[in-house]
Parts: sequence; C-alpha cells; structure tokens
Amino acid sequence: MKNINVEKINQELDIFINDRDWDQFHSIKNLSMALSVETSELVEIFQWMKEEDSNQVANNEKLTQKVKEELADIFIYLLRISKKSNINLETAVLEKIKKNSEKYPVDKSKGNSKKYNDL
Amino acid sequence: MKNINVEKINQELDIFINDRDWDQFHSIKNLSMALSVETSELVEIFQWMKEEDSNQVANNEKLTQKVKEELADIFIYLLRISKKSNINLETAVLEKIKKNSEKYPVDKSKGNSKKYNDL
Amino acid sequence: MKNINVEKINQELDIFINDRDWDQFHSIKNLSMALSVETSELVEIFQWMKEEDSNQVANNEKLTQKVKEELADIFIYLLRISKKSNINLETAVLEKIKKNSEKYPVDKSKGNSKKYNDL
Amino acid sequence: MKNINVEKINQELDIFINDRDWDQFHSIKNLSMALSVETSELVEIFQWMKEEDSNQVANNEKLTQKVKEELADIFIYLLRISKKSNINLETAVLEKIKKNSEKYPVDKSKGNSKKYNDL
Repeated sequence: MKNINVEKINQELDIFINDRDWDQFHSIKNLSMALSVETSELVEIFQWMKEEDSNQVANNEKLTQKVKEELADIFIYLLRISKKSNINLETAVLEKIKKNSEKYPVDKSKGNSKKYNDL
Repeated sequence: MKNINVEKINQELDIFINDRDWDQFHSIKNLSMALSVETSELVEIFQWMKEEDSNQVANNEKLTQKVKEELADIFIYLLRISKKSNINLETAVLEKIKKNSEKYPVDKSKGNSKKYNDL
Repeated sequence: MKNINVEKINQELDIFINDRDWDQFHSIKNLSMALSVETSELVEIFQWMKEEDSNQVANNEKLTQKVKEELADIFIYLLRISKKSNINLETAVLEKIKKNSEKYPVDKSKGNSKKYNDL
Repeated sequence: MKNINVEKINQELDIFINDRDWDQFHSIKNLSMALSVETSELVEIFQWMKEEDSNQVANNEKLTQKVKEELADIFIYLLRISKKSNINLETAVLEKIKKNSEKYPVDKSKGNSKKYNDL
C-alpha cells in the first residue's frame, strides 16, 4: 500500500450516505461515538487472545477477514470526521510524528513504554 | 486531500519507532488497545458538547488543532495495525462499502439509523 | 437501590466462571479490554440518538431492557477487576468524589463543563 | 467488600453535581460517552503491559492507586446512568448471569473463550 486514493473513497462514501439520507445523523459528536464503537469491535477480536497469537493475523485468512472489516469501518469514520473537520490526515500525521519526537526524546524513551509525563 | 502518501508516513513511523526500540510493545493486541485509547481522547473532546457545536470544528482554530492531533494518533495506530496485518486499507474500505450497501438496502434504511439486524 | 449485595454477586460470578474454566483468560489487562468492549455496546445504543431521546430510557421498556443488559455486563467486569485488584469500590468512589471536589472548585466550575486543567 | 452503600454514594454525588450545576450536561447519551472515556483511561494503564504484570496490581501500591481512581470514575458514571435509567444494578447483574449461563452452556464453552454465536 503506497498511496490511498481518498478522493475515490470519499466519492463512494458520499453516494452511499446520500442514497440513505444518513448525513442527518452524522454530527461530528456522533461520528466520534461511532468511531469508538467500531474500534471496540476490533478490540473484541483480541480481548482473550495472547499477544503472540494476535501477531498471527496475516497468517490466518479467517482472522484477516475479520480484522479487515473492522479496520475498514474505523477508517470510514476517520475519513468522515476528517472531511467534516476540514483536516488533512496526511499533514496531521506528519506533524504529530514530529511533535511526538520532541515529547519522547530518544535518550529518555528508548526501550521504555512510559508516558511522556512520567519520563 | 486527494491522496494519502502512506509509504512516506510508514517510513517516518518506522524511523520513529526503531529509534525508540518500541516495536517490542507493538503486538497487534496492544496496538488495538492503544487505538481505542486514542479514539476515546477524541470522544472526550465532544462528550459534553452539543451536536451542533461539534459541527463547528472547522470554524474554530483551537478545536481544529485538538481534533487534528487525535485524528493523527488514531491514524498512526490504524496504519500500524494495517501494516502488521498485511491489510490494504483502500481495498478494505471499498469492499466494506460494497458489503454495507447490501446489508443496508436503500428502501429499508433511507432516513433510518437502525442497525441492519433491526431493519 | 439502597445497597448492592456484592458478596452474593461475586459468589454467583465465581460459580459461573469456575464452571466454564474461564479464569485463565481473565488477566486484569484482558478484563480491562472486555470492560471497554461492553462500554462501547452501551455507547452504540445512543450513537445516533438525540440527547433528549436518550433521557427517555426509563419510559421505554424495550430500551430499558437493552441498557440494563449492557450496564450488567459493565458492572460484572468492573467487579471482577476490583476483586482481582483488591480494591473496594465504595471506598474508591468516596475518595474520588472528595478528590474531584478539590480539582473542580465550585466557583470555577459552576455551570461549566471544562476539564480541570483548562479551568 | 460485602455490600456497596449506593444510597450514600448517590447522596454525595448529587451534592457534588448540584453544587456545580452539572446535571445540564448529563444526558444519558453524554454519560455513556464519559463512561467510555474513563474506561479507556483504565485500558491505557495496561496497554503496553504484559498480562502477568497486569495481575500484580494488588502488589503494587502506586499501580493500585491509579487503578482505584479509574475504577471509581467508571463506577460513578455507571451509577449515574443506572439512576437516570431507573435500573437496579444488582437485579440487572443477577439476571444477566442467568442469561449468560444459558448462552454459554458449560459443555460447549468450558475452557473456550469463543463468543456464543461462534460456539
């Protein structure tokens, strides 16, 4: 996956939503709730699984299919919120990585999972 | 936002994570937890807000900045899980929109927010 | 509801779990995930609902039944984590209300939903 | 912990909320969001932790204190939603354990973490 064609996805999403007249439900508040619900459906797949087993998704076709559908749902709501908030996800991520690099200096955080305010 | 250059983002993320030796913490199970935590940080922004106010993100610079950072964190973990699961997000979303179109036929779901199993 | 008989609930839960040999899955980490999944099932009920409609749970028998089941699942995992962490929920809540009273002084927080670090 | 004195907790919560005039923000929809946010603060504690380490909460005073505060916040919102929905948590849990006993028959679910619809 080198590029994601967001324009195409958004076109298909707009058609899907307009056909069903669902935009009336899509306040950003509601979309944030829906995003959290979809994220929990991903968490549910792994809740009783050992960490090492969770790493076998790519080697298990049935599991891949389940994870794929949940990632899709999450990404759909993420794109929807981005569009409504007029936020460019690529820029947002590149800026955040830079910010995190400062919050988590290599010498203090190497091999260490502590939160920045506990460093 | 027409395209997201995932290759570039993944390169920067890999550098950030390798520099800190953090891949040891990134089982897919743990990444799903982290994704849900970041999603809740987005929800927290809107939890006491009226729906109509949540729709003003794009008109409020301070709010845009907060939402932008949370969307970035969510997207970072989403990309990370996709990569480790060998799942192409674009394909996943396009397939899911098609599947949802069948689960939610226009005549039954128009203007109606019911879940497919309640239709 | 004046008192909750936690001893009785815990006895029934222990029997349920032992009969199924499920304690092996119940690390506190996994229980926290399960708790978040159940919480999202509650959120899902309200995600597309207007705030004023969400306040009608007690007047809608079908909705009461759905909410009741989700609250039960949430409370089950909350009790399970409390027991395994040796934490007394009553004491914990009374201490937290006291702490919150200091974090949110009446004169600064009255009629205001801001987080303490934004006051 | 044999009993939880809910009456006392609710009295203190009512005072806390009335003093701050916060009931205006507490639609059941919003309370479900707040509950999910607090649950994620619990998840955050364990997101990078090994399962066996998460089981050491009771042996680690600092960790106990953190978990205690999050469980308190979760229980506060759970009680608040119960009260507004006119739902008795004790009854709800006892009914749910009975229902789960039927959904997960011992012979099919013993030592098995599968969801009931996959049994």
